Amino acid sequence: MNALGKIVLIGVGLIGGSLMLDLKRRRQVGTVVGIDINADNLARALERRVIDEAHTEITADNIAQADLVVLATPVATLPSLCRLLLPHLPPHTVVSDVGSTKQSALAAFAQYLPQHFPRCVAAHPIAGSDRSGALAAQFGLYQGKKLIVCPHERQDAGSLHLVENVWRSVGAEIHTMDAAEHDAIFAAVSHFPHLLAFSYVHQMLDHPQGARYLDFAGSGFRDFTRIAGSHPKMWQDILLANRDSLLAMIDAQQAQLDRLRHFLQQEDAQRLGDYLAQASGLRADWEKKQK
Amino acid sequence: MNALGKIVLIGVGLIGGSLMLDLKRRRQVGTVVGIDINADNLARALERRVIDEAHTEITADNIAQADLVVLATPVATLPSLCRLLLPHLPPHTVVSDVGSTKQSALAAFAQYLPQHFPRCVAAHPIAGSDRSGALAAQFGLYQGKKLIVCPHERQDAGSLHLVENVWRSVGAEIHTMDAAEHDAIFAAVSHFPHLLAFSYVHQMLDHPQGARYLDFAGSGFRDFTRIAGSHPKMWQDILLANRDSLLAMIDAQQAQLDRLRHFLQQEDAQRLGDYLAQASGLRADWEKKQK
Repeated sequence: MNALGKIVLIGVGLIGGSLMLDLKRRRQVGTVVGIDINADNLARALERRVIDEAHTEITADNIAQADLVVLATPVATLPSLCRLLLPHLPPHTVVSDVGSTKQSALAAFAQYLPQHFPRCVAAHPIAGSDRSGALAAQFGLYQGKKLIVCPHERQDAGSLHLVENVWRSVGAEIHTMDAAEHDAIFAAVSHFPHLLAFSYVHQMLDHPQGARYLDFAGSGFRDFTRIAGSHPKMWQDILLANRDSLLAMIDAQQAQLDRLRHFLQQEDAQRLGDYLAQASGLRADWEKKQK
Repeated sequence: MNALGKIVLIGVGLIGGSLMLDLKRRRQVGTVVGIDINADNLARALERRVIDEAHTEITADNIAQADLVVLATPVATLPSLCRLLLPHLPPHTVVSDVGSTKQSALAAFAQYLPQHFPRCVAAHPIAGSDRSGALAAQFGLYQGKKLIVCPHERQDAGSLHLVENVWRSVGAEIHTMDAAEHDAIFAAVSHFPHLLAFSYVHQMLDHPQGARYLDFAGSGFRDFTRIAGSHPKMWQDILLANRDSLLAMIDAQQAQLDRLRHFLQQEDAQRLGDYLAQASGLRADWEKKQK
């Protein structure tokens, strides 16, 4: 017997789609209903058996008897999706998300699904790609990866455990933390690097010779800017949802650039060398820990 | 018969060592003499047959009858190495380098090897890695890669052709440009991304919780910061040698960050989204052209 009878996945892309592929392979779910505004994307998801049923709207029928609704759309869509879910949501259904900002998710759940709030679980799998859409869904994406859950003050324990078990069953390692701490951490290690990569690529775009210069870009440029190829709408939402942390990171980065400008202006080889060696050392330590 | 009888490689690392491996494999050279200040590194290079002879000093004997001397050390060492070469350099020997900044290389050649300047060729292979040292040397590193040469106003045509032929024989594609243009291009597509990656990692180092936060860093962080693991002394030299271009890039990046700060402060989703989409589009176009 499957652990869950029916899951409704709203937003059938890389993150939600990959979860469903593994849940189905491991027989953790009976039926997966996919809801997405893009009919082509739904057709591809059906073909690849990411989902069993496809719909373009949230209706009472589509979510009837769901054990779990997973919201896997850009984070700014949560308020409007919660509003659409509200009139149809069965009382026992657990609602969870996969977004990269967790304070905004909890705020949306609290405001738009107030009665249901104890059964709303804020979660964030740490796995991603610059690819998107149902075709990007892959088996094994979450094996050995971290899954952050951010329980809130009115959290129902059973709902939290259901969501944790879903992710554990596809190989994820569960970490629990406060939503504010989550957002500060991911501003630093994920959202801000994305912002900087976009910012650097835009600098090349604004440079009068930038397009021609890029003919000479090599592997360093490729890796450094890979995340600037990410889905712009998704990142627009994440950056806005985590704006306070990111504004602080922008200030801190401007201060680092001021230091580097000073070292260069003064031709201070010693301090520049120390600065680079410290950064290089931290990066090397991090790389070692990953193995 | 080999194209060249003897090459002296000063600085036996990834860049020079990989060139020698391919020249020897393709029988383009009789003997490779390696000169390096690190005796352990020389021993590894001999073991791996990157070089045929190893020395820790530049002497008349070591460079006697060399057809080509390749300087493959950090760019700031060129003046002192040219001074050491001067008393011993045979008149027919071609001198070339592989550094990432070409105005500084030509300035060193002109100042410290003035009589020999026509036979000095400034070259830069566009291939690299965050790895370094003789053990990082690999076959085929330059196959299909770009090699930039920056001929100067007193350039001897035969010397230029010799260097071009060496690189062509290991599969590189020769591009010719002015040294000032070279430095502007590589500031933009290589040196500045390195500076930004170092700067971001240093920001994490200075953050009170940075070290702990990095436990949650994923694949985006890995790729974005890979170049911050590069050899700090080498990059200290490159950044200083190309300081004017880099100071301009720092100013331009701070202006981009000011724009992003403004979009976030104003919660201007439209303009932020457009900004990200433009950058993402340029990155996608670049990726397509690489195939």
